[in-house]
Amino acid sequence: MSRFAPSDLIVNVRDSVPLTQGEVEGFVDAVTNNGIQQAQIGAMLMAIRLNGLSADETIHLTRAMMQSGEVLQWPEEWTRQKRVVDKHSTGGVGDKVSVVLAPALAACGMKVPMISGRGLGFAHGTLDKLEAIPGFQISCSTVKMREILDEVGCCIVGQTETLVPADRILYAIRDVTGTVESVPLISSSIVSKKVAETLSALVLDVKCGKAAYMKTEKQARDLAESMVSSSCGVGVETVAILTRMDNPIGNYVGHSLEIIDAIETMQGNGPSDLVELVCTLGGHLLKNAGKVSTPMKGYQLIEETIANGSALEKFRLMMQAQEVDETTANSLCKKDVDFFSIFRPSKLKTDVKADSEGYISSVDAFALANVINSLGAGRAKAGDQINHSVGLHLRKHIGERVEKGEVWLTVHHESPLSGDHLKTIRNTLELQDKELPAGCASRIIDIITNETIQGKRDTPRANDMQNGSCD
Amino acid sequence: MSRFAPSDLIVNVRDSVPLTQGEVEGFVDAVTNNGIQQAQIGAMLMAIRLNGLSADETIHLTRAMMQSGEVLQWPEEWTRQKRVVDKHSTGGVGDKVSVVLAPALAACGMKVPMISGRGLGFAHGTLDKLEAIPGFQISCSTVKMREILDEVGCCIVGQTETLVPADRILYAIRDVTGTVESVPLISSSIVSKKVAETLSALVLDVKCGKAAYMKTEKQARDLAESMVSSSCGVGVETVAILTRMDNPIGNYVGHSLEIIDAIETMQGNGPSDLVELVCTLGGHLLKNAGKVSTPMKGYQLIEETIANGSALEKFRLMMQAQEVDETTANSLCKKDVDFFSIFRPSKLKTDVKADSEGYISSVDAFALANVINSLGAGRAKAGDQINHSVGLHLRKHIGERVEKGEVWLTVHHESPLSGDHLKTIRNTLELQDKELPAGCASRIIDIITNETIQGKRDTPRANDMQNGSCD
Repeated sequence: MSRFAPSDLIVNVRDSVPLTQGEVEGFVDAVTNNGIQQAQIGAMLMAIRLNGLSADETIHLTRAMMQSGEVLQWPEEWTRQKRVVDKHSTGGVGDKVSVVLAPALAACGMKVPMISGRGLGFAHGTLDKLEAIPGFQISCSTVKMREILDEVGCCIVGQTETLVPADRILYAIRDVTGTVESVPLISSSIVSKKVAETLSALVLDVKCGKAAYMKTEKQARDLAESMVSSSCGVGVETVAILTRMDNPIGNYVGHSLEIIDAIETMQGNGPSDLVELVCTLGGHLLKNAGKVSTPMKGYQLIEETIANGSALEKFRLMMQAQEVDETTANSLCKKDVDFFSIFRPSKLKTDVKADSEGYISSVDAFALANVINSLGAGRAKAGDQINHSVGLHLRKHIGERVEKGEVWLTVHHESPLSGDHLKTIRNTLELQDKELPAGCASRIIDIITNETIQGKRDTPRANDMQNGSCD
Repeated sequence: MSRFAPSDLIVNVRDSVPLTQGEVEGFVDAVTNNGIQQAQIGAMLMAIRLNGLSADETIHLTRAMMQSGEVLQWPEEWTRQKRVVDKHSTGGVGDKVSVVLAPALAACGMKVPMISGRGLGFAHGTLDKLEAIPGFQISCSTVKMREILDEVGCCIVGQTETLVPADRILYAIRDVTGTVESVPLISSSIVSKKVAETLSALVLDVKCGKAAYMKTEKQARDLAESMVSSSCGVGVETVAILTRMDNPIGNYVGHSLEIIDAIETMQGNGPSDLVELVCTLGGHLLKNAGKVSTPMKGYQLIEETIANGSALEKFRLMMQAQEVDETTANSLCKKDVDFFSIFRPSKLKTDVKADSEGYISSVDAFALANVINSLGAGRAKAGDQINHSVGLHLRKHIGERVEKGEVWLTVHHESPLSGDHLKTIRNTLELQDKELPAGCASRIIDIITNETIQGKRDTPRANDMQNGSCD
């Protein structure tokens, strides 16, 4: 490593002079090992926020962050066979894809060491949803992870203290310095944590829309390209799926309700948009891992794991491996299970009826999430308690017809709904007279691979975004 | 003061959303009283460095910094009569203007509480030069300052701990975060310290050229405009003189040598460029203080204080007030003084002869300063010792003719000159065959007042500079 002079590096980023790999490593090493002043980190992050980083610099940063802590080790056989895979989503409303996809991939013979996150702000977290299952433990040592992957094939666990310590330090500073919203910083934060899992292949679900951190397709595309470039740059075959996130995913929003959605999906009764997301993401991942020759064959393989019950069986085993008692795990996976014998139901339920008739053209997921979060399903700051029972049951979806007075949504809540709540909820539904075209409910916008972005590698630095964070 | 949320203010500067006066005050108050994280200060400074601040924001910042500590208090009569004045220079090579101007202004009945600085980098400091005088004390309490102003009319002293504490904190962070070179930050740093002296009028010598911190006229003009705007904005009548700083000012460069230059000037034998600077700066100051009706009349009044010996007498009294013993002070001001009976001469002197003949078109002051600094006259970092005897005697000036073999420069040094030193020195002299036009040696480029810049007040934020710092 070259001699490290923090202020020289700051000046370079300030003046858009590219940093070398050694310089970026020096910066991250100093961040991790207290070799740089906090004020210098703040200045560097702002310089990155305002001037961006090149694709190469973002790769250097991602690799250096990954190397700042423990990097997971797997049996040589798994690596050779390209079996270790994972998925990341930038977060949305009703997004329980991971809960279905990890077991489905395990059912295909993959090893899925999924390190996931908690909810913050409008979006809910996979770990919080899984904790709605009585007994489910999200903390897990790396030794235990390997045992679970050996026996079951997948686990969904919380971030350990040992992985990517540089990210925790940088994120805490970004959070108070107006530097969260930066493509290279978001990208390196997300990707460094994923590649520290030592993956053969990675799929990224990059969402855009009203209920995503990236509001515009342009922002989401910039981020997706940066992440694919960085992840491929450190040697992980990566594809990003650009997906629409305006209306809630699936039939349910909320914590225990989304586990119900996921289990029903693994039982073969899933909402079509959720199934599409699971199979598309899984299909590309299986293709990149060399398990199938095309993403479509991968799609079909994932569908099969659902149809033949093997995904659900992996989910049952994963629950048990993560400390859910056998009776609970078995009950949850039974065909005719009464979910509310296991999950505590909310005290109140309120049906919401359509004020008029028509075809559903839009359901504002962001506004709905804010309502249920204000009712207890959300977390305003890290460490806040959340209520697993609060949520929504969406009885009708985009493109479907509702009649006037028909129930299209049921709110699960603990305290009474205010008039404002109901008004906000009613306003989230948009109807139109004309039937929507076939395929209108598909969420897939584009597939972004390292090949599709190679032509852009020599263009200017990653643009900054106006909004959004998801790392 | 409005509720202070540091990260909101950082985001505003990041996005070029103007800060209110209350917000800027909140920021400076937090900086001064440990109410903001170091990382946040670093990020804010980088956002200012890259996005700039508007003229109004710079005024707010200047005022808030001034108010962060003690503000000097003067007798009501001095204030009413607009007698308290000062001058600041952005620094150059051979710049001993203050040493002459402060006594000259005192001789005009002004009160000059000049708080000056030490040298760092290529430029030398007025305080260091004065300390070449045996016994001269630059530390001085504000009580003592007022006594000296009452009795003598001028003093030249060091920064006290109590004035503008925010600047010391911000400067220490700017120094390590690549944010020294920012027009609004330089401007607010300089002006806040000057206006904390509670002045009636202020004149700024803003230098540009090879041996100035601002290399280009554009940079110097931007800084001058920002400083005039800010200083006028907090209620001090201020004018900036844009001056050329390519070749050394006056006959001498170095510490005790420059005191000789200053005394010879007050004895009526000064080099024409130094006299022009002293009289021009003083003339505008006297005009702004209402002492004279035009800058030209002020120019003449300063000339008179030199011609009639009253400036020199004030200098003698100031030296005594600042602890120089009476014998030394008297000797230094005698007409036929042998300066080297008081100042220790350098061990060695080397005459440098012209390699050819011609009219002097250029003498590279920056290169010369670097040579004598490497010989002991300079300070690479704060706290370094300097040698007061090392320096240069310029025997010929811009526009003058030299013959081949004629001595144009004498180096005063303690250790032998290397071949490289001599080569560098020789290369600083540029000759031309043709005589230079009359007035070629004038250093005055432009006069910048609040009126001349009013038309620019609504233009975009102050541009950033590529180089330079002088606060």
